[in-house]
Amino acid sequence: MSLDNIRIVLVGTTHPGNIGSAARAMKTMGLHQLVLVSPQCDLGDTALAMAANAGDVLRSARRTDTLDEAVTDCTLVIGTSARQRSVDWPLADLHDAARKVANNAPAATAVVFGREKSGLTNDELDHCNLMVRIATAPDAASLNLAAAVQVVAYELRRACTGDRVTEAEPRHPDDEPATSADLERLFSHLENTLRGSGFLIPRHEGVVMRRLRSFILRATPTHRDVRILRGICASVQDSSTAVSAGGEEYV
Amino acid sequence: MSLDNIRIVLVGTTHPGNIGSAARAMKTMGLHQLVLVSPQCDLGDTALAMAANAGDVLRSARRTDTLDEAVTDCTLVIGTSARQRSVDWPLADLHDAARKVANNAPAATAVVFGREKSGLTNDELDHCNLMVRIATAPDAASLNLAAAVQVVAYELRRACTGDRVTEAEPRHPDDEPATSADLERLFSHLENTLRGSGFLIPRHEGVVMRRLRSFILRATPTHRDVRILRGICASVQDSSTAVSAGGEEYV
Repeated sequence: MSLDNIRIVLVGTTHPGNIGSAARAMKTMGLHQLVLVSPQCDLGDTALAMAANAGDVLRSARRTDTLDEAVTDCTLVIGTSARQRSVDWPLADLHDAARKVANNAPAATAVVFGREKSGLTNDELDHCNLMVRIATAPDAASLNLAAAVQVVAYELRRACTGDRVTEAEPRHPDDEPATSADLERLFSHLENTLRGSGFLIPRHEGVVMRRLRSFILRATPTHRDVRILRGICASVQDSSTAVSAGGEEYV
Repeated sequence: MSLDNIRIVLVGTTHPGNIGSAARAMKTMGLHQLVLVSPQCDLGDTALAMAANAGDVLRSARRTDTLDEAVTDCTLVIGTSARQRSVDWPLADLHDAARKVANNAPAATAVVFGREKSGLTNDELDHCNLMVRIATAPDAASLNLAAAVQVVAYELRRACTGDRVTEAEPRHPDDEPATSADLERLFSHLENTLRGSGFLIPRHEGVVMRRLRSFILRATPTHRDVRILRGICASVQDSSTAVSAGGEEYV
Protein backbone atom coordinates (compact mmCIF):
# COMPACT_ATOMS: atom_id res chain seq x y z
CA MET A 1 0.00 0.00 0.00
CA SER A 2 1.17 3.45 -0.73
CA LEU A 3 1.46 5.77 2.22
CA ASP A 4 -0.35 8.49 0.28
CA ASN A 5 -3.76 7.62 1.70
CA ILE A 6 -2.72 7.94 5.29
CA ARG A 7 -3.24 11.23 7.05
CA ILE A 8 -1.89 12.29 10.40
CA VAL A 9 -4.43 14.33 12.36
CA LEU A 10 -3.32 16.50 15.25
CA VAL A 11 -6.16 17.71 17.48
CA GLY A 12 -5.93 20.90 19.54
CA THR A 13 -2.13 21.04 19.57
CA THR A 14 -0.84 23.88 21.74
CA HIS A 15 2.89 24.05 20.89
CA PRO A 16 3.93 25.10 17.36
CA GLY A 17 7.27 23.31 17.82
CA ASN A 18 5.41 20.04 18.26
CA ILE A 19 3.55 20.55 15.01
CA GLY A 20 6.81 21.30 13.20
CA SER A 21 8.56 18.27 14.71
CA ALA A 22 5.59 16.07 13.86
CA ALA A 23 5.78 17.25 10.23
CA ARG A 24 9.46 16.37 10.14
CA ALA A 25 8.80 12.95 11.69
CA MET A 26 6.09 12.29 9.07
CA LYS A 27 8.30 13.23 6.16
CA THR A 28 11.18 10.99 7.26
CA MET A 29 8.81 8.07 6.82
CA GLY A 30 7.14 9.25 3.63
CA LEU A 31 3.88 10.59 5.09
CA HIS A 32 2.71 13.91 3.65
CA GLN A 33 -0.90 14.52 4.65
CA LEU A 34 -1.15 16.56 7.81
CA VAL A 35 -4.48 17.78 9.19
CA LEU A 36 -4.67 20.24 12.06
CA VAL A 37 -7.94 20.18 13.95
CA SER A 38 -8.51 23.42 15.79
CA PRO A 39 -4.84 24.08 16.61
CA GLN A 40 -4.32 26.23 19.69
CA CYS A 41 -1.27 28.03 18.37
CA ASP A 42 0.04 29.88 15.34
CA LEU A 43 2.25 28.13 12.83
CA GLY A 44 5.03 30.66 12.86
CA ASP A 45 8.79 30.48 12.70
CA THR A 46 9.06 27.98 15.55
CA ALA A 47 7.00 25.41 13.70
CA LEU A 48 8.93 25.96 10.48
CA ALA A 49 12.27 25.73 12.24
CA MET A 50 11.36 22.43 13.89
CA ALA A 51 9.98 21.08 10.62
CA ALA A 52 13.46 21.47 9.08
CA ASN A 53 13.15 20.20 5.51
CA ALA A 54 9.50 19.23 5.97
CA GLY A 55 8.27 22.78 5.46
CA ASP A 56 6.22 21.53 2.51
CA VAL A 57 4.25 19.16 4.76
CA LEU A 58 3.60 22.00 7.16
CA ARG A 59 2.56 24.48 4.50
CA SER A 60 0.18 22.07 2.81
CA ALA A 61 -1.45 21.08 6.11
CA ARG A 62 -5.24 21.22 6.02
CA ARG A 63 -7.13 22.84 8.87
CA THR A 64 -10.53 21.89 10.16
CA ASP A 65 -12.63 22.93 13.13
CA THR A 66 -13.64 19.45 14.19
CA LEU A 67 -12.26 15.94 14.05
CA ASP A 68 -15.42 14.86 12.28
CA GLU A 69 -14.57 17.04 9.28
CA ALA A 70 -11.00 15.78 9.27
CA VAL A 71 -11.88 12.12 9.00
CA THR A 72 -15.24 12.15 7.26
CA ASP A 73 -13.99 10.30 4.15
CA CYS A 74 -11.87 7.79 6.04
CA THR A 75 -12.71 4.10 6.34
CA LEU A 76 -10.30 3.50 9.18
CA VAL A 77 -9.67 5.99 11.97
CA ILE A 78 -7.12 5.08 14.58
CA GLY A 79 -6.90 7.08 17.77
CA THR A 80 -3.77 7.22 19.89
CA SER A 81 -3.77 7.42 23.63
CA ALA A 82 -1.07 7.87 26.21
CA ARG A 83 -3.18 6.76 29.11
CA GLN A 84 -5.19 3.84 30.24
CA ARG A 85 -8.83 4.62 29.82
CA SER A 86 -11.73 3.47 31.86
CA VAL A 87 -14.18 3.29 29.01
CA ASP A 88 -12.88 0.53 26.85
CA TRP A 89 -12.37 1.37 23.26
CA PRO A 90 -10.90 -1.54 21.38
CA LEU A 91 -7.20 -1.23 22.09
CA ALA A 92 -4.58 -2.53 19.67
CA ASP A 93 -0.84 -2.92 19.69
CA LEU A 94 0.74 -0.38 17.36
CA HIS A 95 2.43 -3.09 15.33
CA ASP A 96 -0.89 -4.84 14.71
CA ALA A 97 -2.69 -1.57 14.01
CA ALA A 98 -0.09 -0.68 11.38
CA ARG A 99 -0.83 -3.96 9.60
CA LYS A 100 -4.49 -3.13 9.74
CA VAL A 101 -3.76 0.19 8.07
CA ALA A 102 -1.74 -1.56 5.37
CA ASN A 103 -4.67 -3.90 4.74
CA ASN A 104 -7.07 -0.99 4.46
CA ALA A 105 -5.56 0.09 1.14
CA PRO A 106 -6.43 1.98 -0.90
CA ALA A 107 -9.04 3.65 1.28
CA ALA A 108 -8.37 6.79 3.26
CA THR A 109 -7.03 6.18 6.74
CA ALA A 110 -6.37 8.56 9.61
CA VAL A 111 -4.23 8.31 12.69
CA VAL A 112 -5.32 10.84 15.28
CA PHE A 113 -3.20 12.41 18.02
CA GLY A 114 -4.81 14.39 20.85
CA ARG A 115 -3.82 17.42 22.88
CA GLU A 116 -0.42 17.42 24.62
CA LYS A 117 -1.95 17.61 28.09
CA SER A 118 -5.28 15.91 27.83
CA GLY A 119 -5.36 13.72 24.73
CA LEU A 120 -8.62 13.11 22.92
CA THR A 121 -12.05 13.67 24.39
CA ASN A 122 -14.57 10.87 24.56
CA ASP A 123 -16.54 12.53 21.78
CA GLU A 124 -13.46 12.49 19.59
CA LEU A 125 -12.69 8.89 20.50
CA ASP A 126 -16.17 8.03 19.26
CA HIS A 127 -14.90 8.71 15.74
CA CYS A 128 -12.16 6.12 16.06
CA ASN A 129 -12.47 2.52 14.94
CA LEU A 130 -9.55 1.51 17.05
CA MET A 131 -7.35 2.87 19.78
CA VAL A 132 -3.60 2.44 19.85
CA ARG A 133 -1.37 2.90 22.82
CA ILE A 134 2.40 2.78 22.40
CA ALA A 135 3.79 0.48 25.09
CA THR A 136 6.09 2.43 27.40
CA ALA A 137 7.96 1.73 30.61
CA PRO A 138 5.54 1.68 33.56
CA ASP A 139 7.36 4.38 35.51
CA ALA A 140 7.93 6.66 32.54
CA ALA A 141 6.03 9.66 31.32
CA SER A 142 4.42 9.32 27.94
CA LEU A 143 6.14 10.09 24.67
CA ASN A 144 5.91 13.66 23.59
CA LEU A 145 3.72 14.34 20.59
CA ALA A 146 6.42 14.38 17.90
CA ALA A 147 8.10 11.27 19.35
CA ALA A 148 4.76 9.45 19.22
CA VAL A 149 4.22 10.55 15.63
CA GLN A 150 7.74 9.34 14.80
CA VAL A 151 7.19 5.87 16.22
CA VAL A 152 3.75 5.54 14.62
CA ALA A 153 5.09 6.75 11.26
CA TYR A 154 7.96 4.26 11.50
CA GLU A 155 5.57 1.35 12.04
CA LEU A 156 3.23 2.56 9.29
CA ARG A 157 6.10 2.73 6.85
CA ARG A 158 7.28 -0.75 7.79
CA ALA A 159 3.80 -2.22 7.43
CA CYS A 160 2.87 -0.41 4.22
CA THR A 161 6.02 -0.61 2.19
CA GLY A 162 7.63 -3.71 3.64
CA ASP A 163 10.65 -1.47 3.60
CA ARG A 164 13.51 -3.30 5.16
CA VAL A 165 17.03 -2.19 5.28
CA THR A 166 19.13 -5.07 4.20
CA GLU A 167 22.17 -4.43 2.15
CA ALA A 168 23.08 -1.11 0.66
CA GLU A 169 23.73 -0.70 -3.04
CA PRO A 170 24.49 -3.59 -5.36
CA ARG A 171 27.67 -5.10 -4.16
CA HIS A 172 30.98 -5.65 -5.78
CA PRO A 173 31.24 -9.29 -6.87
CA ASP A 174 34.10 -9.70 -4.38
CA ASP A 175 31.65 -8.85 -1.63
CA GLU A 176 29.21 -11.59 -2.56
CA PRO A 177 29.23 -14.61 -0.29
CA ALA A 178 31.71 -17.29 -1.21
CA THR A 179 30.42 -20.64 -2.42
CA SER A 180 30.56 -23.80 -0.45
CA ALA A 181 33.28 -25.08 -2.78
CA ASP A 182 35.39 -21.97 -2.15
CA LEU A 183 35.00 -22.50 1.56
CA GLU A 184 36.00 -26.15 1.35
CA ARG A 185 39.19 -25.14 -0.43
CA LEU A 186 39.79 -22.56 2.28
CA PHE A 187 39.27 -25.15 5.02
CA SER A 188 41.76 -27.54 3.38
CA HIS A 189 44.30 -24.78 3.00
CA LEU A 190 43.78 -23.71 6.62
CA GLU A 191 44.10 -27.27 7.86
CA ASN A 192 47.37 -27.79 6.04
CA THR A 193 48.71 -24.51 7.31
CA LEU A 194 47.79 -25.21 10.91
CA ARG A 195 49.29 -28.66 10.70
CA GLY A 196 52.47 -27.04 9.39
CA SER A 197 52.56 -24.43 12.13
CA GLY A 198 52.20 -27.12 14.79
CA PHE A 199 48.83 -25.86 15.98
CA LEU A 200 46.94 -28.89 14.78
CA ILE A 201 48.06 -32.14 16.28
CA PRO A 202 46.53 -35.40 15.08
CA ARG A 203 44.77 -36.14 18.35
CA HIS A 204 42.66 -32.96 18.24
CA GLU A 205 42.50 -32.09 14.60
CA GLY A 206 38.87 -32.98 14.22
CA VAL A 207 37.41 -30.91 16.99
CA VAL A 208 39.60 -27.87 16.39
CA MET A 209 38.82 -27.80 12.68
CA ARG A 210 35.14 -28.23 13.42
CA ARG A 211 35.17 -25.19 15.69
CA LEU A 212 37.07 -23.13 13.15
CA ARG A 213 34.66 -24.10 10.41
CA SER A 214 31.72 -23.15 12.57
CA PHE A 215 33.32 -19.81 13.40
CA ILE A 216 34.13 -19.01 9.79
CA LEU A 217 30.76 -20.12 8.45
CA ARG A 218 29.00 -17.95 10.97
CA ALA A 219 30.53 -14.85 9.39
CA THR A 220 29.24 -15.80 5.91
CA PRO A 221 32.58 -15.03 4.26
CA THR A 222 32.72 -13.13 1.01
CA HIS A 223 35.06 -13.93 -1.86
CA ARG A 224 37.32 -11.17 -0.63
CA ASP A 225 37.36 -12.58 2.90
CA VAL A 226 38.30 -15.98 1.55
CA ARG A 227 41.10 -14.45 -0.50
CA ILE A 228 42.48 -12.63 2.54
CA LEU A 229 42.29 -15.75 4.71
CA ARG A 230 44.01 -17.89 2.09
CA GLY A 231 46.58 -15.15 1.65
CA ILE A 232 47.32 -15.36 5.35
CA CYS A 233 47.67 -19.12 5.12
CA ALA A 234 50.08 -18.76 2.20
CA SER A 235 52.14 -16.15 4.04
CA VAL A 236 52.36 -18.37 7.13
CA GLN A 237 53.45 -21.32 5.01
CA ASP A 238 56.03 -19.18 3.25
CA SER A 239 57.29 -17.23 6.20
CA SER A 240 59.98 -19.70 7.18
CA THR A 241 61.28 -20.14 3.64
CA ALA A 242 60.77 -16.98 1.63
CA VAL A 243 59.77 -13.35 1.76
CA SER A 244 56.03 -13.00 1.25
CA ALA A 245 54.49 -10.58 -1.19
CA GLY A 246 52.43 -9.00 1.58
CA GLY A 247 48.68 -8.52 1.81
CA GLU A 248 48.47 -6.21 -1.17
CA GLU A 249 46.94 -8.56 -3.67
CA TYR A 250 44.26 -9.74 -1.28
CA VAL A 251 42.65 -6.42 -0.55
CA MET B 1 15.53 -10.05 28.71
CA SER B 2 15.69 -7.09 30.92
CA LEU B 3 16.53 -3.79 29.30
CA ASP B 4 19.03 -3.07 32.08
CA ASN B 5 22.03 -4.36 30.15
CA ILE B 6 21.48 -2.14 27.15
CA ARG B 7 23.33 1.13 27.00
CA ILE B 8 22.76 3.96 24.60
CA VAL B 9 26.03 5.56 23.56
CA LEU B 10 26.04 9.04 22.03
CA VAL B 11 29.30 9.99 20.36
CA GLY B 12 30.40 13.60 19.98
CA THR B 13 26.93 15.10 20.32
CA THR B 14 26.95 18.86 19.76
CA HIS B 15 23.48 19.95 20.90
CA PRO B 16 22.56 19.64 24.59
CA GLY B 17 18.87 19.58 23.66
CA ASN B 18 19.46 16.42 21.66
CA ILE B 19 21.09 14.73 24.63
CA GLY B 20 18.15 15.71 26.84
CA SER B 21 15.58 14.53 24.30
CA ALA B 22 17.48 11.29 23.83
CA ALA B 23 17.40 10.70 27.60
CA ARG B 24 13.66 11.27 27.59
CA ALA B 25 13.18 8.92 24.65
CA MET B 26 15.21 6.25 26.45
CA LYS B 27 13.24 6.52 29.66
CA THR B 28 9.87 6.21 27.95
CA MET B 29 10.99 2.76 26.81
CA GLY B 30 12.66 1.71 30.07
CA LEU B 31 16.29 2.29 29.08
CA HIS B 32 18.44 3.94 31.74
CA GLN B 33 22.12 3.59 30.82
CA LEU B 34 23.36 6.58 28.87
CA VAL B 35 27.03 6.98 27.92
CA LEU B 36 28.34 10.20 26.42
CA VAL B 37 31.53 9.81 24.45
CA SER B 38 33.39 13.10 24.20
CA PRO B 39 30.27 15.30 24.08
CA GLN B 40 30.86 18.63 22.33
CA CYS B 41 28.52 20.61 24.57
CA ASP B 42 27.70 21.27 28.21
CA LEU B 43 24.78 19.52 29.83
CA GLY B 44 23.12 22.60 31.16
CA ASP B 45 19.54 23.74 31.55
CA THR B 46 18.67 23.06 27.93
CA ALA B 47 19.49 19.39 28.25
CA LEU B 48 17.61 19.11 31.54
CA ALA B 49 14.58 20.90 30.14
CA MET B 50 14.40 18.60 27.13
CA ALA B 51 14.91 15.53 29.32
CA ALA B 52 11.66 16.44 31.15
CA ASN B 53 11.16 13.69 33.75
CA ALA B 54 14.25 11.79 32.59
CA GLY B 55 16.62 14.03 34.52
CA ASP B 56 17.81 10.95 36.42
CA VAL B 57 18.97 9.31 33.18
CA LEU B 58 20.85 12.47 32.27
CA ARG B 59 22.46 12.96 35.68
CA SER B 60 23.64 9.36 35.89
CA ALA B 61 25.10 9.44 32.38
CA ARG B 62 28.66 8.14 32.20
CA ARG B 63 31.28 10.04 30.21
CA THR B 64 34.22 8.60 28.37
CA ASP B 65 36.81 10.02 26.02
CA THR B 66 36.61 7.27 23.44
CA LEU B 67 34.06 4.82 22.11
CA ASP B 68 36.46 2.02 22.96
CA GLU B 69 36.13 2.80 26.68
CA ALA B 70 32.38 3.03 26.39
CA VAL B 71 31.90 -0.45 24.95
CA THR B 72 34.89 -2.38 26.24
CA ASP B 73 32.78 -4.83 28.28
CA CYS B 74 30.06 -5.26 25.63
CA THR B 75 29.55 -8.44 23.65
CA LEU B 76 27.31 -6.83 21.06
CA VAL B 77 27.89 -3.35 19.74
CA ILE B 78 25.40 -2.00 17.23
CA GLY B 79 26.19 1.13 15.28
CA THR B 80 23.54 3.31 13.72
CA SER B 81 23.98 5.10 10.45
CA ALA B 82 21.90 7.56 8.52
CA ARG B 83 23.84 7.17 5.29
CA GLN B 84 24.84 4.58 2.81
CA ARG B 85 28.48 3.66 3.27
CA SER B 86 30.98 2.49 0.76
CA VAL B 87 32.93 0.18 3.00
CA ASP B 88 30.45 -2.46 3.80
CA TRP B 89 29.81 -3.12 7.42
CA PRO B 90 27.19 -5.79 7.88
CA LEU B 91 23.90 -3.89 7.75
CA ALA B 92 20.77 -5.11 9.52
CA ASP B 93 17.17 -4.07 9.63
CA LEU B 94 16.37 -2.43 12.98
CA HIS B 95 13.66 -4.95 13.76
CA ASP B 96 16.07 -7.87 13.26
CA ALA B 97 18.85 -6.14 15.17
CA ALA B 98 16.51 -5.63 18.13
CA ARG B 99 15.88 -9.38 18.24
CA LYS B 100 19.60 -9.95 18.16
CA VAL B 101 19.93 -7.68 21.18
CA ALA B 102 17.19 -9.57 22.99
CA ASN B 103 19.00 -12.84 22.30
CA ASN B 104 22.27 -11.46 23.60
CA ALA B 105 20.92 -11.45 27.16
CA PRO B 106 22.19 -11.08 29.74
CA ALA B 107 25.43 -9.69 28.33
CA ALA B 108 26.18 -6.02 27.99
CA THR B 109 25.01 -4.52 24.72
CA ALA B 110 25.52 -1.07 23.27
CA VAL B 111 23.68 0.87 20.61
CA VAL B 112 25.86 3.69 19.32
CA PHE B 113 24.71 6.95 17.75
CA GLY B 114 27.18 9.25 16.00
CA ARG B 115 27.51 12.99 15.60
CA GLU B 116 24.52 14.97 14.36
CA LYS B 117 26.31 16.12 11.19
CA SER B 118 28.77 13.41 10.41
CA GLY B 119 27.78 10.22 12.19
CA LEU B 120 30.43 7.73 13.26
CA THR B 121 33.97 7.62 11.92
CA ASN B 122 35.34 4.49 10.30
CA ASP B 123 37.51 3.91 13.37
CA GLU B 124 34.40 4.02 15.53
CA LEU B 125 32.51 1.72 13.18
CA ASP B 126 35.38 -0.74 13.58
CA HIS B 127 34.09 -1.38 17.10
CA CYS B 128 30.62 -2.38 15.93
CA ASN B 129 29.47 -5.94 15.28
CA LEU B 130 26.57 -4.75 13.23
CA MET B 131 25.24 -1.60 11.60
CA VAL B 132 21.63 -0.57 11.66
CA ARG B 133 19.98 1.95 9.41
CA ILE B 134 16.40 3.00 10.04
CA ALA B 135 14.48 2.80 6.77
CA THR B 136 13.25 6.24 5.74
CA ALA B 137 11.55 7.76 2.74
CA PRO B 138 14.02 8.14 -0.13
CA ASP B 139 13.46 11.89 -0.50
CA ALA B 140 13.52 12.65 3.20
CA ALA B 141 16.27 13.90 5.44
CA SER B 142 17.40 11.55 8.16
CA LEU B 143 15.77 11.35 11.55
CA ASN B 144 17.17 13.73 14.10
CA LEU B 145 19.18 12.17 16.88
CA ALA B 146 16.46 11.98 19.53
CA ALA B 147 13.91 10.68 17.01
CA ALA B 148 16.33 7.92 16.03
CA VAL B 149 16.91 7.04 19.68
CA GLN B 150 13.13 6.96 20.19
CA VAL B 151 12.52 4.55 17.33
CA VAL B 152 15.43 2.32 18.32
CA ALA B 153 14.33 2.30 21.97
CA TYR B 154 10.80 1.40 20.90
CA GLU B 155 12.02 -1.60 18.92
CA LEU B 156 14.37 -2.67 21.71
CA ARG B 157 11.54 -2.58 24.20
CA ARG B 158 9.29 -4.57 21.91
CA ALA B 159 11.94 -7.18 21.28
CA CYS B 160 13.12 -7.45 24.88
CA THR B 161 9.84 -7.38 26.76
CA GLY B 162 6.95 -7.94 24.41
CA ASP B 163 8.01 -10.04 21.50
CA ARG B 164 8.44 -13.68 22.16
CA VAL B 165 12.08 -14.32 21.58
CA THR B 166 13.08 -17.94 21.42
CA GLU B 167 15.81 -18.53 23.93
CA ALA B 168 18.42 -21.13 23.20
CA GLU B 169 19.36 -23.56 25.98
CA PRO B 170 21.76 -22.31 28.61
CA ARG B 171 25.19 -22.11 27.10
CA HIS B 172 28.60 -23.07 28.39
CA PRO B 173 30.45 -19.91 29.52
CA ASP B 174 33.05 -20.53 26.80
CA ASP B 175 30.29 -20.31 24.23
CA GLU B 176 29.17 -16.90 25.37
CA PRO B 177 30.17 -14.01 23.11
CA ALA B 178 33.54 -12.44 23.82
CA THR B 179 33.67 -8.86 25.03
CA SER B 180 34.86 -5.93 23.00
CA ALA B 181 38.02 -5.82 25.15
CA ASP B 182 38.77 -9.50 24.41
CA LEU B 183 38.38 -8.81 20.73
CA GLU B 184 40.66 -5.79 20.82
CA ARG B 185 43.36 -7.98 22.36
CA LEU B 186 42.76 -10.54 19.66
CA PHE B 187 43.06 -7.91 16.93
CA SER B 188 46.38 -6.67 18.35
CA HIS B 189 47.70 -10.20 18.58
CA LEU B 190 46.56 -10.93 15.03
CA GLU B 191 48.10 -7.74 13.70
CA ASN B 192 51.47 -8.52 15.29
CA THR B 193 51.36 -12.05 13.98
CA LEU B 194 50.52 -11.00 10.44
CA ARG B 195 53.23 -8.37 10.50
CA GLY B 196 55.65 -11.08 11.61
CA SER B 197 54.56 -13.49 8.90
CA GLY B 198 55.03 -10.83 6.25
CA PHE B 199 51.37 -10.74 5.30
CA LEU B 200 50.84 -7.22 6.55
CA ILE B 201 52.97 -4.63 4.89
CA PRO B 202 52.86 -1.06 6.12
CA ARG B 203 51.29 0.31 2.96
CA HIS B 204 48.14 -1.82 3.29
CA GLU B 205 47.93 -2.56 6.97
CA GLY B 206 44.92 -0.37 7.62
CA VAL B 207 42.58 -1.70 4.99
CA VAL B 208 43.53 -5.35 5.48
CA MET B 209 43.06 -5.13 9.24
CA ARG B 210 39.72 -3.39 8.77
CA ARG B 211 38.48 -6.19 6.55
CA LEU B 212 39.68 -8.81 8.99
CA ARG B 213 38.01 -7.02 11.89
CA SER B 214 34.78 -6.74 9.98
CA PHE B 215 34.95 -10.43 9.08
CA ILE B 216 35.65 -11.53 12.64
CA LEU B 217 33.07 -9.22 14.23
CA ARG B 218 30.43 -10.52 11.87
CA ALA B 219 30.80 -13.98 13.39
CA THR B 220 30.23 -12.61 16.94
CA PRO B 221 33.10 -14.72 18.29
CA THR B 222 32.75 -16.65 21.54
CA HIS B 223 35.41 -16.87 24.22
CA ARG B 224 36.38 -20.25 22.83
CA ASP B 225 36.71 -18.86 19.30
CA VAL B 226 38.97 -16.10 20.58
CA ARG B 227 41.11 -18.63 22.42
CA ILE B 228 41.51 -20.77 19.31
CA LEU B 229 42.35 -17.77 17.12
CA ARG B 230 44.91 -16.49 19.61
CA GLY B 231 46.29 -20.00 19.89
CA ILE B 232 46.79 -20.02 16.15
CA CYS B 233 48.57 -16.67 16.32
CA ALA B 234 50.84 -17.96 19.06
CA SER B 235 51.62 -21.12 17.12
CA VAL B 236 52.46 -19.11 14.01
CA GLN B 237 54.71 -16.81 15.99
CA ASP B 238 56.42 -19.80 17.62
CA SER B 239 56.61 -22.08 14.62
CA SER B 240 59.98 -20.88 13.43
CA THR B 241 61.59 -21.09 16.87
CA ALA B 242 60.05 -23.89 18.88
CA VAL B 243 57.73 -26.84 18.83
CA SER B 244 54.21 -25.73 19.65
CA ALA B 245 52.02 -27.44 22.20
CA GLY B 246 49.34 -27.94 19.59
CA GLY B 247 45.70 -26.94 19.66
CA GLU B 248 44.79 -29.07 22.63
CA GLU B 249 44.45 -26.38 25.23
CA TYR B 250 42.30 -24.18 23.01
CA VAL B 251 39.49 -26.59 22.41
